[in-house]
Amino acid sequence: MTEINYTLEPIGFVESPITQRENAPSQGDEGAPDAWITLNRNIAEGLDGVHIGDAMIVLTWFHQSKRDVLKLHPRWDKNNPLTGVFATRSPDRPNPIGLHPVTVLEIKSNKIKVSNLEAIDGTPVIDLKPVI
Amino acid sequence: MTEINYTLEPIGFVESPITQRENAPSQGDEGAPDAWITLNRNIAEGLDGVHIGDAMIVLTWFHQSKRDVLKLHPRWDKNNPLTGVFATRSPDRPNPIGLHPVTVLEIKSNKIKVSNLEAIDGTPVIDLKPVI
Repeated sequence: MTEINYTLEPIGFVESPITQRENAPSQGDEGAPDAWITLNRNIAEGLDGVHIGDAMIVLTWFHQSKRDVLKLHPRWDKNNPLTGVFATRSPDRPNPIGLHPVTVLEIKSNKIKVSNLEAIDGTPVIDLKPVI
Repeated sequence: MTEINYTLEPIGFVESPITQRENAPSQGDEGAPDAWITLNRNIAEGLDGVHIGDAMIVLTWFHQSKRDVLKLHPRWDKNNPLTGVFATRSPDRPNPIGLHPVTVLEIKSNKIKVSNLEAIDGTPVIDLKPVI
């Protein structure tokens, strides 16, 4: 049995007017801006078949997260009871992967513009998947 | 700026009657079996607040995938036109993360049973998130 490789390779990065984690809304439908994702040129052909108007899920890597958090107060509100991290969507979690439902707004060679992406500028993108 | 750590830590593993990739359905609603996920004991408290009947998304790491595939024939059918990997849900992709919508059926300390999980026995689990 070969050893499993658990290393992610970023496929691109978010370009967003949000530059501070404190300013990012908790969920994309709470006022997140449109954002461009710049994909690495060597994997841009993986976008063939993605069209404007498509509903997609963007997977990001919350590179500023704490990974040793197992319980927290949801939405950083001490009035919410301490809750296991897997019952929340907190970016602080063992593997800080974000799931962002978006709509494709524009595609320009290796760049793709999407709606409502609650991720700060420079966030690594690790996958794009169609909603099915 | 500190260097980004892109290494996933598995939080647990799938126990499933499906042992061969060829026998896994393409999507969970096409006949995937119920399956247990055994979480590492040291992170099991992250399940507090997860309840039977909850709709969740299980994130897996398709450890048997090819990661250099950028175009493919969807559903391994040559009659389907060659398509960019990001327009498909193929497990062969640069970062082979699977998203599995499931319902929680049972919870026993560090084990959680879920419905319709199209992942083979031994698949690493990397995250659990509530559907919101």
